[in-house]
Amino acid sequence: MDGTFFDEPVLRLFPEPSVRLSVEDVYGDVRFPTRDRPSASRPYVVVNMISSLDGKATASGKAGPIGSPTDRLLMRALRARVDAVMIGAGTLRAEKLTLAVPRDLKASREARGLRPQPLAVLATGSSDLPLEANLLGPSPDNLLVLTSPETPEECLTELSSSGASIEVVPEESDSVSSSSQLDLARALETLKERYAVDVLLVEGGPVLNHTFVRNGLADELFLTLAPKLLGGARSGTLTILEGPPVPPQKTGPKLISVHLSGDELFLRYALRPPGW
Amino acid sequence: MDGTFFDEPVLRLFPEPSVRLSVEDVYGDVRFPTRDRPSASRPYVVVNMISSLDGKATASGKAGPIGSPTDRLLMRALRARVDAVMIGAGTLRAEKLTLAVPRDLKASREARGLRPQPLAVLATGSSDLPLEANLLGPSPDNLLVLTSPETPEECLTELSSSGASIEVVPEESDSVSSSSQLDLARALETLKERYAVDVLLVEGGPVLNHTFVRNGLADELFLTLAPKLLGGARSGTLTILEGPPVPPQKTGPKLISVHLSGDELFLRYALRPPGW
Repeated sequence: MDGTFFDEPVLRLFPEPSVRLSVEDVYGDVRFPTRDRPSASRPYVVVNMISSLDGKATASGKAGPIGSPTDRLLMRALRARVDAVMIGAGTLRAEKLTLAVPRDLKASREARGLRPQPLAVLATGSSDLPLEANLLGPSPDNLLVLTSPETPEECLTELSSSGASIEVVPEESDSVSSSSQLDLARALETLKERYAVDVLLVEGGPVLNHTFVRNGLADELFLTLAPKLLGGARSGTLTILEGPPVPPQKTGPKLISVHLSGDELFLRYALRPPGW
Repeated sequence: MDGTFFDEPVLRLFPEPSVRLSVEDVYGDVRFPTRDRPSASRPYVVVNMISSLDGKATASGKAGPIGSPTDRLLMRALRARVDAVMIGAGTLRAEKLTLAVPRDLKASREARGLRPQPLAVLATGSSDLPLEANLLGPSPDNLLVLTSPETPEECLTELSSSGASIEVVPEESDSVSSSSQLDLARALETLKERYAVDVLLVEGGPVLNHTFVRNGLADELFLTLAPKLLGGARSGTLTILEGPPVPPQKTGPKLISVHLSGDELFLRYALRPPGW
């Protein structure tokens, strides 16, 4: 769907006063803090997810069918404002997707001093990455795969031959779930130092989101609340965070803005106090 | 917590124009359709639930700790407007609770022609109902237990001796989950015919909600979206609907109103077209 022939208006509900906006203008005034942060050894991390009213981030294993065309346009508007977009390998295994922005957003990226396309970042502890089958869009020189030391050598060789960049990131053991996951703090430093990523957009899946949130590495959450009741058992119907209980946050999520289109709500929360 | 010494203002965001309200006035203009409905063989059914941003309706098995004092006041404001409040037995087993409204709301109930306290309705297929331990408030003559034909005779005798009313409701088999549940359509007819219930408030748990929604018996959803990220595995962290996938609704949930207090959102949705 192209932004040029879709013009569902969006109502900004919060902060006041209410205004009616075109989809293109909804996040037009979003400015993510970058170089002026006191502690900028890692990118500013923004998570974007969709959920049904009953908390389901996927239906039959896929997130794609839950959102409206407006949701997809806003997802792309966020991609247009960041240096890199990250997803976990499970999300890529679940459905075909692209991390690219459409042509008509390239000019606004360039006006902001961003590269024409955000760097596509895949986080995986596994070797099962269906890049060619499911990832649409990025040329290999715009693709970075974060793998673990556990990844077999032949997989690395195969990934390398595709032309993608590869970074092997240490794993950290999770004492609660007793599983191992990529050390995201280290991964973020690498993104900042070697790939000049100041703002990173994370688009799931729920396990990757959970690792960011639990480690205090997620700065904002954009949450689309789709006007649907999906039901469904846990397999295939994940919530936006999948993992052990998250320790209570000192400063809970702070609501930044609320937009409404049709019956779909678009919520933006700060997850960490400003000026960290 | 008593409504009289709590005065966090609430901002109505939708429908426009935005207004600042006291908690008492938030649902002050709510009118549920009752006798003028064309098909009024059952009560109008309103579901009220709370969820974290990551879709969790319970933390460590309990819903109580998720909401704010404002949420609890609005929960009571809804109770003040209905003839009966229903919960499932699992919810009562999970935590101590009351289904009663505080003294200061009795006058407004009487002004609306309602009995001083809503009828407390417990839906159970099981015999394990910790009435004395966990249910605070209703006198036995204000308590109705909906049981199934499977309930052992001695349990019925014990319940009867407590003074509570008892209705044995047929079960319907669920072809999807291959479990049996109370036939809620029949239960609703009983509530209407024998107990003069025109408006029923359902407060969970998630399995009971799911049965109402899947059978098209829920007319509205009041959803509090708490500014929390809880995480947690499925056991102990249910979503607001627990059960098989819900068939897509012809008319999806329609947003009726949005209120904001602090960072907590209070959403009201119509689940069925008006005038059914």
